Amino acid sequence: MPSISLKGHHMPESPVRKLVPFAENAKKRGIKVYHLNIGQPDIKTPQIALDAVKNNRIDVLAYSRSEGSEIYRKKIAMHYKKYHIQVTHDDILVTTGGSEALFFTLSSIADAGDEIIIPEPFYANYNSFSIASGVHIVPVTSKIDTNFDLPPISEFEQLISDKTKAILICNPGNPTGYLYTKEEIHALAQLAKKHDLFLIADEVYRDFIYDNTEHYSILRESELEEHAIMIDSVSKKYSMCGARIGCIVSRNNTFIATALKFAQARLSPPTYAQIASEAALDTPQEYFDQIIKEYSDRRNTLITELQKIPHVKVTQPKGAFYCIAELPICDADHFAQWLLEKYHYKHETVMVAPASGFYSNTAFGKYQVRIAYVLNKDSIIKAVTILKHALDEYRYIDHEKTTTSSVASCDIH
Amino acid sequence: MPSISLKGHHMPESPVRKLVPFAENAKKRGIKVYHLNIGQPDIKTPQIALDAVKNNRIDVLAYSRSEGSEIYRKKIAMHYKKYHIQVTHDDILVTTGGSEALFFTLSSIADAGDEIIIPEPFYANYNSFSIASGVHIVPVTSKIDTNFDLPPISEFEQLISDKTKAILICNPGNPTGYLYTKEEIHALAQLAKKHDLFLIADEVYRDFIYDNTEHYSILRESELEEHAIMIDSVSKKYSMCGARIGCIVSRNNTFIATALKFAQARLSPPTYAQIASEAALDTPQEYFDQIIKEYSDRRNTLITELQKIPHVKVTQPKGAFYCIAELPICDADHFAQWLLEKYHYKHETVMVAPASGFYSNTAFGKYQVRIAYVLNKDSIIKAVTILKHALDEYRYIDHEKTTTSSVASCDIH
Repeated sequence: MPSISLKGHHMPESPVRKLVPFAENAKKRGIKVYHLNIGQPDIKTPQIALDAVKNNRIDVLAYSRSEGSEIYRKKIAMHYKKYHIQVTHDDILVTTGGSEALFFTLSSIADAGDEIIIPEPFYANYNSFSIASGVHIVPVTSKIDTNFDLPPISEFEQLISDKTKAILICNPGNPTGYLYTKEEIHALAQLAKKHDLFLIADEVYRDFIYDNTEHYSILRESELEEHAIMIDSVSKKYSMCGARIGCIVSRNNTFIATALKFAQARLSPPTYAQIASEAALDTPQEYFDQIIKEYSDRRNTLITELQKIPHVKVTQPKGAFYCIAELPICDADHFAQWLLEKYHYKHETVMVAPASGFYSNTAFGKYQVRIAYVLNKDSIIKAVTILKHALDEYRYIDHEKTTTSSVASCDIH
Repeated sequence: MPSISLKGHHMPESPVRKLVPFAENAKKRGIKVYHLNIGQPDIKTPQIALDAVKNNRIDVLAYSRSEGSEIYRKKIAMHYKKYHIQVTHDDILVTTGGSEALFFTLSSIADAGDEIIIPEPFYANYNSFSIASGVHIVPVTSKIDTNFDLPPISEFEQLISDKTKAILICNPGNPTGYLYTKEEIHALAQLAKKHDLFLIADEVYRDFIYDNTEHYSILRESELEEHAIMIDSVSKKYSMCGARIGCIVSRNNTFIATALKFAQARLSPPTYAQIASEAALDTPQEYFDQIIKEYSDRRNTLITELQKIPHVKVTQPKGAFYCIAELPICDADHFAQWLLEKYHYKHETVMVAPASGFYSNTAFGKYQVRIAYVLNKDSIIKAVTILKHALDEYRYIDHEKTTTSSVASCDIH
């Protein structure tokens, strides 16, 4: 058989996907599964966006411009003013989701062997995009014991080499919910300028900020015109994950022109989704007010309930809709599979995302899971109750005998 | 300023895109431009596909599965039976257009420095995908003087090295309209098997075959299970270029599992477009019968008219909706720009795609342009008339003085 590529070998499987067959089997056995594992909100997409697609008048579903339609980009630029971000439509490249935005960005700034510094834990697909691009992630580890606070800037600086092309942050962060302060962004901006690196901020959760705090975009930093690249997406903001529309925003024209060449190779972003996304920009503020209140309540419920379980560590997320929880278990992959394969509490169980995939140093995530609070409060309470009972039972079983997992038996952490 | 990547530098601009500002300026001067440069058909999208989107009942526009919905993949597998292609839905990975299908394929089978053999002229974006992947294209040149016939298999075999991972063909071909015979496919299949290479066929124009000939897919080759990879797309078939839905089809499970990891990193193909694409599979045969007749007529008109122009060489395309024409000019890039910038015939001009971008050896395309017959017959006749007059005038001008192009003056070919 002809051989597949080395990078194909090294591409990680989705940390959740390998659990999907176990979840499907559990359902076949009549077990209800609470999905705390995914970033797919249950929130309704704005009606104005849905209607725009239903009322479209297309008769030839043609390519759009590779950079996205000019009208849409002008509306995006106008929309950012609300966030004190001053850009023009020429600074915006519409992409097929935030994923493509990240991939074009990495491709435009880094060659195989180059390095990107990323605080970990980070969005699992940063690993995938890096491997696909041949780029090495150099992690700066933030720790649950210190609330996933940003490590000192000196830790970043120590890691800068002549291979370093960028620092990439996710603000607010998936999977930690960490929100960067203005001072932290400013310090990172100074560091990027000092060493002439790109500072990339994945801000797709910008609107999900709680406790009346404010998000501070890297694009608000003055004198960072050439260095700042912002990644955005309609997926979470408008509960439109299936649209596949995102964008790259940068005032660095050379960078945008380069990313455009990658965009031209894939011809255009999807047309229907651009119609929905353009209309979504007119979503009334009340829609967001309700959602933020809902997510804030869910977060409070989740954290309160998790803190009631002995030996569970969790931090208070300030944004996005995830938290990392450290559990009294030997191996999160093993535990997550066991929950689906062997466990139920009154015919219900939970699915969580093992956190090892969110680290470059996968061992750091061995006892941790990511929990998404994308379910309503009642479901969250039920799911955490199940988790509590499951942890009680998990401590006292002989793991080697009770699962089909390839994970060996291990001491409880 | 932080530096962009080498591959970003080397990514080619779209061969047509650099002409767009000149076309826009011509229109501002009141000149009508006949667009023979693009692969965007003017054919109406099947109503059944348009209606499916208008009548959708989505209220949360959620991610679909990374590999595409199971129902859609099952319908695709069923559809292929019509073409004597026997596959199951597990052999199919739905992608965001044929572009993504090609990119995932290259990423899954080749690392930086590996080689892919491609008959040229070829679809310009093969250059882009290769550069983005760090893969080298090793061209086998087909020539206009021999109707772009497939060069002897021995020419392919001579180029195979330990770096060679695949042979990539486009059947029927963009930009030549060349249709591979069953015997040629069989010979390439034997070669791929002998050297344990992948044989990749981009078959997105499969339905556009004229003169009552038949398309022969590589997936009809027996004993090629592990080696054959087919690329498909809804873009041209259903005049749905803006949907951005394609697929990879292969019976090699290891390859599909690898491509799926790349697909997981970008989460999912666009949801609305999958709705349209699934519905499009039920398009009645009459729709295609009409289109094929229309394109066949357009092709006949185009070739007949082009052959009337002295010193113009053109071959008879057997499929797709393009032809390559060799013109009595010094430089096709220069000529294409001049047509837009300096020329008009009764306030009308034409836009063509210079062919250098369709070659790995760009010099081979210096006197050639790609003409897409995506306009109705009357427009084609008018456009070729303009081209004829333009060529007459172009011979007698001092190019250095009459354009702002960076192309130096040159002898007429």
